[in-house]
Amino acid sequence: MPKIVDHEKQREKVAEATWRVIQKMGLDQASVRNIADEAGLSVGSMRHYFSTHSELLFYAMKMVSDRVGKRIANIAFSGDLLTDIPLLVDEILPTDEEKRLEMEVWFAFVVKSLSDKDLAKYRTVVDDELRTIFVEIMDGLTAKNLAEPGLDIEIEIERFYALIDGLAIHAVLRPEKVTADLMRKAVYRHLLSLCLPAAELNAKKEQT
Amino acid sequence: MPKIVDHEKQREKVAEATWRVIQKMGLDQASVRNIADEAGLSVGSMRHYFSTHSELLFYAMKMVSDRVGKRIANIAFSGDLLTDIPLLVDEILPTDEEKRLEMEVWFAFVVKSLSDKDLAKYRTVVDDELRTIFVEIMDGLTAKNLAEPGLDIEIEIERFYALIDGLAIHAVLRPEKVTADLMRKAVYRHLLSLCLPAAELNAKKEQT
Repeated sequence: MPKIVDHEKQREKVAEATWRVIQKMGLDQASVRNIADEAGLSVGSMRHYFSTHSELLFYAMKMVSDRVGKRIANIAFSGDLLTDIPLLVDEILPTDEEKRLEMEVWFAFVVKSLSDKDLAKYRTVVDDELRTIFVEIMDGLTAKNLAEPGLDIEIEIERFYALIDGLAIHAVLRPEKVTADLMRKAVYRHLLSLCLPAAELNAKKEQT
Repeated sequence: MPKIVDHEKQREKVAEATWRVIQKMGLDQASVRNIADEAGLSVGSMRHYFSTHSELLFYAMKMVSDRVGKRIANIAFSGDLLTDIPLLVDEILPTDEEKRLEMEVWFAFVVKSLSDKDLAKYRTVVDDELRTIFVEIMDGLTAKNLAEPGLDIEIEIERFYALIDGLAIHAVLRPEKVTADLMRKAVYRHLLSLCLPAAELNAKKEQT
């Protein structure tokens, strides 16, 4: 049993080394040799953890979305959507160094997926999962009567999702301009713009 | 004189071949040999148009932003911001096949720029130019008294710009979901959400 745990931990260590190589040198330089060097392992021992280079790259890509998924699963939601939605979105946005590294790696894979069918298949699965988050946000706002009446839900889902991905890429490219604080303010402003005016929201709160 | 024109045209033809190679095979496969094959030229003749591989890639990247800039310069603006802003944004968004190819190529260079200092320098210049468009949009809405009072302009600039880049990347990745029609509706909805309510806007129009 401990051996299996160690094996999985070692695979994660190798995948993290892959992320750092991608960040420093780009995905096209993420060779088995460069990753082994970064991980402090011999090239020969790499075969023990991943049988092919593709398997390793796929694992490193999947680890990004798995980590985001785990963080979201661990959020202690309050039940108040105007508090919970920003918490949820915060786990997707690159609001700290660790999440910025994840996002950089993710974008590298996304671009590679445009000319790689296997990566494209997995990217589409993750895209569908992310899109579902924004479907649920809009459903939640509607169900709790917080949403402004008359919204075109299909457009609002794409508008919110596109805003988040746009903020994420801008934060990776211009971290000094697009800070965590600016992203959070933009998200909160966007969320409020989807809701009834503040006065009506407060009246609703007092009723409950 | 005609010789110089031909030379420049040929450089553009080679750059367009570079775009197609990037779209089909990815930027890491955009070797001189693959580009020459795609352009129908001999590898030897490539040196006549570009002295180095880096020079060729840089030219191909710059041609994307030059084409967007040219299209924007050719817009016949009406003076009515609620008409003109969608026209302007339309030239950035991948609303047809040609612009989708440009955007795919641009994203490939953007990701490469994360580990390439020369590309990063140029990408920052273009990012600053694009950002200025959204500064001018918000300034225009404010100057013409169309903007809702009390907006935090810094946040609105980033929110609009991030929305556009998010829509652009989603349209490249999921063209069947994020159609030109959906993008245009999202942009127009966003624009109206920054403005005074329709009734007040109409009253203003009648005054003028």
